[in-house]
Amino acid sequence: MQHTISVLVENKFGVLTRVAGLFSGRGYNIHSLNVAPTQDLNTSHMTIVTRGDDATIEQIVKQLQKLINVLVVHDFGQEDFVDRELIMVKVAVNSQTRAEVMQITGIFRGKIVDAQRDSLTIEITGNASKVEKFIELMQAFGVMDLTRTGRVALPRQ
Amino acid sequence: MQHTISVLVENKFGVLTRVAGLFSGRGYNIHSLNVAPTQDLNTSHMTIVTRGDDATIEQIVKQLQKLINVLVVHDFGQEDFVDRELIMVKVAVNSQTRAEVMQITGIFRGKIVDAQRDSLTIEITGNASKVEKFIELMQAFGVMDLTRTGRVALPRQ
Repeated sequence: MQHTISVLVENKFGVLTRVAGLFSGRGYNIHSLNVAPTQDLNTSHMTIVTRGDDATIEQIVKQLQKLINVLVVHDFGQEDFVDRELIMVKVAVNSQTRAEVMQITGIFRGKIVDAQRDSLTIEITGNASKVEKFIELMQAFGVMDLTRTGRVALPRQ
Repeated sequence: MQHTISVLVENKFGVLTRVAGLFSGRGYNIHSLNVAPTQDLNTSHMTIVTRGDDATIEQIVKQLQKLINVLVVHDFGQEDFVDRELIMVKVAVNSQTRAEVMQITGIFRGKIVDAQRDSLTIEITGNASKVEKFIELMQAFGVMDLTRTGRVALPRQ
């Protein structure tokens, strides 16, 4: 089962290496990970999506809490949270298919961020199932390039 | 100067640790990093935003290319590219301020993804200057929580 774990860390050299090393050293899966600054110049925030049974996730959280420069670890386990991911996808188009790609983009509330004669670059945000459905639909036209941020999440309450 | 580097890697244990270790071991800055699956089950794609002069960036790219399980390294240096980031921000509101927060969200083409009596959770996408401007505006109301994905980028041509 996929779990989303939020980790607040101090901006010190080596903290990302220690976090990544914990996962690789113990054979824990990383589906996606992102790390970016917070409003506090001294800290960064990570979101890690991993797979594992409850015992494994509990171990991951405990081990993360023991690492140097790790301040707060939070597993979005049972609680209600909102999660989003951003993808950018470059899709092959021609004069026959461009309108159809634009229609589907509209249905998904995507934005066209670049247009070339033979391609459209589209930004889509949503949860995993929405962005994956969009990618699947675009494969019929031809996905020329794709990049995704991995998930971020905030609690609802 | 900020540089955006795209790295295609094989899905092998330890590749993220090696990449992070290269940056920490040599004292290179990581502003943001994200790693997520590609359409190919065997590979993942990373986007790293770092700072450094041209010589440093050249060294980073060369060192990354030498790492095991690193397939392709691309520095979005001089070329034209489109970059985006997603943030979710939970903003304090009350009956007086809610409308104003919604107006500003509309101007930034953001989406309200959760509403509580005393807060709105808002999703904004854009380049760094746009998302930072939005965060700055929201600070007047009260930023209760914030998470950001870090940048992803695709070449324009």
